[in-house]
Amino acid sequence: MKNISVLGSTGSIGRQTLEVAAANPEKLKIRVLAAHTNVILMQQQIEVFHPDFAVLTDKEAAAELQKKYHGETVILSGQEGLLTAATYEKADTVLGAMVGYAGLRPTLAAIKAGKDIALANKETLVAAGHIVMQAVKDYNVSLLPVDSEHSAIFQSLRSGYHPCLSFTDKRKEDSEVKRLILTASGGPFRGKTREELKNVTLAQCLKHPNWSMGKKVTIDSSTLANKGLEVMEAHWLFNMPYDKIDVVIHPQSIVHSLVEFKDGAVIAQLGIPDMKLPIQYALSYPQRYDYNFGQLDLLKCNNLTFEAPDLEVFPSLQIAIDCGKAGGSLPCAFNAANEECVAAFLDGRISYLDIPEIVKHVVDSHVLIPYPGLDEIEETDRIVRIRTKELIKQL
Amino acid sequence: MKNISVLGSTGSIGRQTLEVAAANPEKLKIRVLAAHTNVILMQQQIEVFHPDFAVLTDKEAAAELQKKYHGETVILSGQEGLLTAATYEKADTVLGAMVGYAGLRPTLAAIKAGKDIALANKETLVAAGHIVMQAVKDYNVSLLPVDSEHSAIFQSLRSGYHPCLSFTDKRKEDSEVKRLILTASGGPFRGKTREELKNVTLAQCLKHPNWSMGKKVTIDSSTLANKGLEVMEAHWLFNMPYDKIDVVIHPQSIVHSLVEFKDGAVIAQLGIPDMKLPIQYALSYPQRYDYNFGQLDLLKCNNLTFEAPDLEVFPSLQIAIDCGKAGGSLPCAFNAANEECVAAFLDGRISYLDIPEIVKHVVDSHVLIPYPGLDEIEETDRIVRIRTKELIKQL
Repeated sequence: MKNISVLGSTGSIGRQTLEVAAANPEKLKIRVLAAHTNVILMQQQIEVFHPDFAVLTDKEAAAELQKKYHGETVILSGQEGLLTAATYEKADTVLGAMVGYAGLRPTLAAIKAGKDIALANKETLVAAGHIVMQAVKDYNVSLLPVDSEHSAIFQSLRSGYHPCLSFTDKRKEDSEVKRLILTASGGPFRGKTREELKNVTLAQCLKHPNWSMGKKVTIDSSTLANKGLEVMEAHWLFNMPYDKIDVVIHPQSIVHSLVEFKDGAVIAQLGIPDMKLPIQYALSYPQRYDYNFGQLDLLKCNNLTFEAPDLEVFPSLQIAIDCGKAGGSLPCAFNAANEECVAAFLDGRISYLDIPEIVKHVVDSHVLIPYPGLDEIEETDRIVRIRTKELIKQL
Repeated sequence: MKNISVLGSTGSIGRQTLEVAAANPEKLKIRVLAAHTNVILMQQQIEVFHPDFAVLTDKEAAAELQKKYHGETVILSGQEGLLTAATYEKADTVLGAMVGYAGLRPTLAAIKAGKDIALANKETLVAAGHIVMQAVKDYNVSLLPVDSEHSAIFQSLRSGYHPCLSFTDKRKEDSEVKRLILTASGGPFRGKTREELKNVTLAQCLKHPNWSMGKKVTIDSSTLANKGLEVMEAHWLFNMPYDKIDVVIHPQSIVHSLVEFKDGAVIAQLGIPDMKLPIQYALSYPQRYDYNFGQLDLLKCNNLTFEAPDLEVFPSLQIAIDCGKAGGSLPCAFNAANEECVAAFLDGRISYLDIPEIVKHVVDSHVLIPYPGLDEIEETDRIVRIRTKELIKQL
């Protein structure tokens, strides 16, 4: 039995994690549920999974939950509550599915408490990959990817030798990996021109062709910023230089990513596009559980295609990769600017094409800190958000 | 340094094996070369690779080689020579690339001498899988696939747990594999009707769309008999029941085969269609060597398709699978009848559509021996060949 804490339990990944847990009651026990404000859903989740702790970081929401709920689960609130929950001694694995930068502090706390991490919150690695990976090493924990692309790479890596993963074998040989190939669906606007993107609406952005995900990541998918964040995530997770990470557009979302080995063999993981598979794999690893979420029918895959991303129409991907290559505080700045722009777009305060433009403006003027500590990361995040909001207001 | 004996060195797989060895001079040392009759090529190979032994099973050819060659390599002849070579103490791995049933005796001898086997000669497993796999177990050697499909499956299997392979880990858990999916190009006649196949010529058969292979396997590919033999090979190699082995037609020959795990994840090996990759993997396993034979360009894979095989136009596949399921001496009978029919077609003695018809006739009238020993396998092979030749003559 693995004991699991779910940080971000009311979001898309969190809810699917609970489906996985419900499907594997003899293997997975939910110990902690944590979310931001959703009182009603949190109460329902508590009543189904009976965790030891439940956290709402929003204090008013937590107070409301406390009033309505009278069971045995202990209700905590605020960032202190979240940190208490993230480090709870009875949990083995913390599934990090907070949205955006907010996942960093609790993830680091969980690592330092010796928890294995199943990471859906890529922004944690984007903003502070060097700090997080050093902590993973120092505290000898496993960091397992939940993103479907990184899960596919992680599964495919097993077919050869790659030394960087803390949780695989400890030989000292050189990696046999030549290249990681992240696939991207291309989102709802694949094939469009910049002109055609001028007036796209929020509703159009939220119609992802293949995946059902949260709003933030769906917008990021449509701009390819998400793929840029994933390139950075892959860089840290798999200790791969940026020139060995490629992105190909694969609109059918069947091949979830690939690894090319040095002998020319390419190993890929395929499957129906359902996040429950990578979530379960991150929780079941190194085993695979029986429960499966629908079988891939290859005979229905009668046209799998691969094409290069259009960097002119979707500049966010290249901006992200350039920030990743520059390193230091720049990925954190990219992420902060992008989060603020996406929030502004979701609120109708800026247009779709403003997103990459403002982000580019912000990162171009950012003064890079080469080896930022956690405080400098926090400060970068804070200042860049202020700067981005100013730019948004000036529009 | 791995010491390699190549049985069948002048054939297509043998020659490509020597290319692999030449590309990895510090890792692979050729100790034995063995072939049937090709004096000129054998002499050239000896002069490049300087093996300790060279064998021509045809005694006249061996005598001719002995006359022409005056170097240090010891020339042997006949079946005795082949068995001496197959069991040579300085070899670690025997690459079995004889054509057809002839590979069985030397492969078994090599296993009993404690050699690891890299097996290209699928007929060995088809005819006597139960005997060969028992010997692999008893003598604790590794049997590594060279066929591209089985190599792809073998590479993909590493992504989960599967207990049957003598050379993977020794846990006692249940397999995590749900299904093997062998891909087939469909050969040059994919999409044709039976009517259109009536008058196909040998030259048409030998034009395989993707792979460069020997004549026998190229004909077998065009009839899908080859895929039937591969299903039987996979059954034995991976200890999988027939109802867990599927065949899909994938005309582009990029996805070389796939493994479906019990959680729904499908792992595949992709690559350009070049036998040197699976040959090298069988020799380098568990490592991968640096030398690669051309990089897969996914951006040129702009239409990967999968379809069901047409069992009506290509009955050999179903006949083979039915023989495999029935077991006993029937797979050996299928193989013997098929080898004789292909030889007769290569000689222009029968037409293309006669091949499956005669094979069907022979296996339908074969009296199955449930648990044949090696002598009974030999006898089955002998009798079925006589019977097949009679039927061919009567046409």
